[in-house]
Amino acid sequence: MIKLKMPLLAPEVDAAALKAVQPAVRRVVDQLYKGRCPGSDMLGWRDLPLKEDSAELRQIQKLARKIRQKADLFIVVGIGGSYLGARAAIEGLSPALPGNRSGPEILFLGNHLDADYAAELLRYIKGKKYYVNVISKSGTTTEPGIAFRLLLDHLRRTLPAKKVKERVIATTSPVKGALLAMAEEFGFHKFIIPEDVGGRFSVLTPVGLLPMAVAGIDIGKMLKGAAGMARHCSENRTLGKNDALKYAAARHLLYLAGKPIEILGVWNPALLYLAEWWKQLFGESEGKDKKGIFPASVGLTTDLHSLGQYIQDGRRDLFETFLVIDKNRRKVAIPELEGDPDQLGFLAGQQLAFANQQAWRGTMLAHRAGGTPNMTLHIGKRDAFHFGELFYFFEFAVAVSGLLLGVNPFDQPGVEAYKKNMFALLGEPGREEERRALEEQLLKIDDSE
Amino acid sequence: MIKLKMPLLAPEVDAAALKAVQPAVRRVVDQLYKGRCPGSDMLGWRDLPLKEDSAELRQIQKLARKIRQKADLFIVVGIGGSYLGARAAIEGLSPALPGNRSGPEILFLGNHLDADYAAELLRYIKGKKYYVNVISKSGTTTEPGIAFRLLLDHLRRTLPAKKVKERVIATTSPVKGALLAMAEEFGFHKFIIPEDVGGRFSVLTPVGLLPMAVAGIDIGKMLKGAAGMARHCSENRTLGKNDALKYAAARHLLYLAGKPIEILGVWNPALLYLAEWWKQLFGESEGKDKKGIFPASVGLTTDLHSLGQYIQDGRRDLFETFLVIDKNRRKVAIPELEGDPDQLGFLAGQQLAFANQQAWRGTMLAHRAGGTPNMTLHIGKRDAFHFGELFYFFEFAVAVSGLLLGVNPFDQPGVEAYKKNMFALLGEPGREEERRALEEQLLKIDDSE
Repeated sequence: MIKLKMPLLAPEVDAAALKAVQPAVRRVVDQLYKGRCPGSDMLGWRDLPLKEDSAELRQIQKLARKIRQKADLFIVVGIGGSYLGARAAIEGLSPALPGNRSGPEILFLGNHLDADYAAELLRYIKGKKYYVNVISKSGTTTEPGIAFRLLLDHLRRTLPAKKVKERVIATTSPVKGALLAMAEEFGFHKFIIPEDVGGRFSVLTPVGLLPMAVAGIDIGKMLKGAAGMARHCSENRTLGKNDALKYAAARHLLYLAGKPIEILGVWNPALLYLAEWWKQLFGESEGKDKKGIFPASVGLTTDLHSLGQYIQDGRRDLFETFLVIDKNRRKVAIPELEGDPDQLGFLAGQQLAFANQQAWRGTMLAHRAGGTPNMTLHIGKRDAFHFGELFYFFEFAVAVSGLLLGVNPFDQPGVEAYKKNMFALLGEPGREEERRALEEQLLKIDDSE
Repeated sequence: MIKLKMPLLAPEVDAAALKAVQPAVRRVVDQLYKGRCPGSDMLGWRDLPLKEDSAELRQIQKLARKIRQKADLFIVVGIGGSYLGARAAIEGLSPALPGNRSGPEILFLGNHLDADYAAELLRYIKGKKYYVNVISKSGTTTEPGIAFRLLLDHLRRTLPAKKVKERVIATTSPVKGALLAMAEEFGFHKFIIPEDVGGRFSVLTPVGLLPMAVAGIDIGKMLKGAAGMARHCSENRTLGKNDALKYAAARHLLYLAGKPIEILGVWNPALLYLAEWWKQLFGESEGKDKKGIFPASVGLTTDLHSLGQYIQDGRRDLFETFLVIDKNRRKVAIPELEGDPDQLGFLAGQQLAFANQQAWRGTMLAHRAGGTPNMTLHIGKRDAFHFGELFYFFEFAVAVSGLLLGVNPFDQPGVEAYKKNMFALLGEPGREEERRALEEQLLKIDDSE
């Protein structure tokens, strides 16, 4: 099981501070399990891995096998939670170089509005056999909505109607919405997103599982890892026995101690998208009511030659959480070089993994000495099982952490503000007055020096 | 020329505040041009594009043409400034999908210590014709040093000695260091990094230019863009006439007004690595003496469904700088969909670029209304010329901004701390005592609960 080590959080967080926060932790964990907390209608993620629907799982696996055999390309259309979880797992667990991967190439659309990218993708898919997995609870979200229009249009122009429907899989609400209606009307293959699971908590539903299975990831093992962590959390509700609680409590204490920025530092480039998923999960759950830890991320050792300077010597309002994979998949020994011109000869014959490990160990101490408290989350191996543990670990931790902060960790009211303006500016019927008012404000910006 | 619009920084930064800071700006700009500032031995970047060495440029272009014809792969070995600039330009200006790119595939090694990635790359290059561009002033930096050992070892095991030397290009110090010595001993092709240009300011030297040229980027045009901006900055030393100065002054004022986090928001996924380059440039230049703006980045609209919630509603200690490309390369019209199930029908026939533009315009106003001041940097087109302008714009701005803050923007003393620990832990001869002391501290962490 993944393991948290946090002695380098002291003096800001020590045994006494943890002891003092234990009653508050106990209270919010009780609320969470009794379903008596803010956002209690969105607690579906909590027991999700424990209620594994094996019929659904088999269905996903069967469809994924078919797609792996038949497709050149698999295009995932989604944004936010309908994008980041699948991508985090796929980039995290697949070979890094696309040329080394098996199965269809996996591309993502509908997570931005960039015309150059869309044009390129539309050119790239010509003559290729591709499947589209469109993921949206409502089906009316702008970015995936437009992307799906583009792809459906392309499918229809190149294939007969009954072939088109075979190429589309809709992952959506089980009870309502535009995408559900379309899936039923056109006969698309359909998977459901439980109503009580929010986007950023949906990685272990078909939202994440189908793209992962198409990428060749063992989703059964992932769910097993997640279920183990879910049981562990449910059965161990005190700080001393539950590292997810410790993580939640520690970061809350650090926030109160004047450290409002958390940097997730990953020691393997494969984990960079996991950091993006983590930033959504924590930033969107906690960043409200003018509160919340600001989540940032670094890739290491890469960014020790970049943000490393800031972390070592800049403003002292940061803390770090390192993600360390204890056991690499492959071994690479550092070769000899005659004459030792680079002065690295003392490393010859050593494993590269050993060098990475010493870099992490040296960095922990250096950053602590510089005034940046840090902790390390140890993940045994980079595999589906441990990713399952990790996904659940962070979901549980952010729920506790958000509740400790006094916010509803399960809503995202601020996401509406840009949408509202955007729709008016795009000319949505009935919003003409609003549009005029916005254009007036914008005119002043255009005219400014 | 790229253009900054900043009315949405008010009330934190308004005309009066800018006027008040003008004398300080004037003072540091004078210091900068007279070479009388902290770090004045590292001002080589200042006039670099104005002193274009056309013989060197032709040499780079000639070698790049040869490599584009002959190579399957081009592997760039470097970290920090010897990595991020080239990658920012290549990802920013090349087609997004590797399958749409021309010339050799470009891979990066030596920017981390991950064994899985290295093993994969070593497997991937088997049987392929590859060139290695090793970039390091000293040649003794650990990450690129080890990567170069791996690749040189592989080359030697698969090719005769005189072929090996044709496959390696060393970009290094002109006067000293391990890599220079190796290049001379083995007869590698050699390009130089001027002694007075620091890593993060080196993108417009052969460090960045050779990989870009191999990627098919018109480096002549890039240098022209940079030279234009360099001339503009030199000839316009007041806030009213120089947007790079305005940017520097505005962010300094925001910092003083209690906004220590700057988020660079890019509206095109192609610019995500440019944001990484920017984070190094600003974080490493300013993050010292317990001071400095913390640089973060978001991809948009992607992260409006992620960190967007925080930016709208979280702690009010942020400001944003948007990078907007005014003119897309390609056009994509949003298609009709009969029955309008997704309710996006009012967009049918509109350009995707129009949607992206309204998203940006709506976001500016929404974030300002939520309490996040923001400004926008307009880049006419996503091409080499404008990237040249932009690179210089940011280099100049960070120099001014760092000097306003009262730090030396050209050093990075904090980068040594992790290295020192790492070398001792790796068993460097002569550091046994230090190693024992570090291992003792680490033992306590291993033993902790």
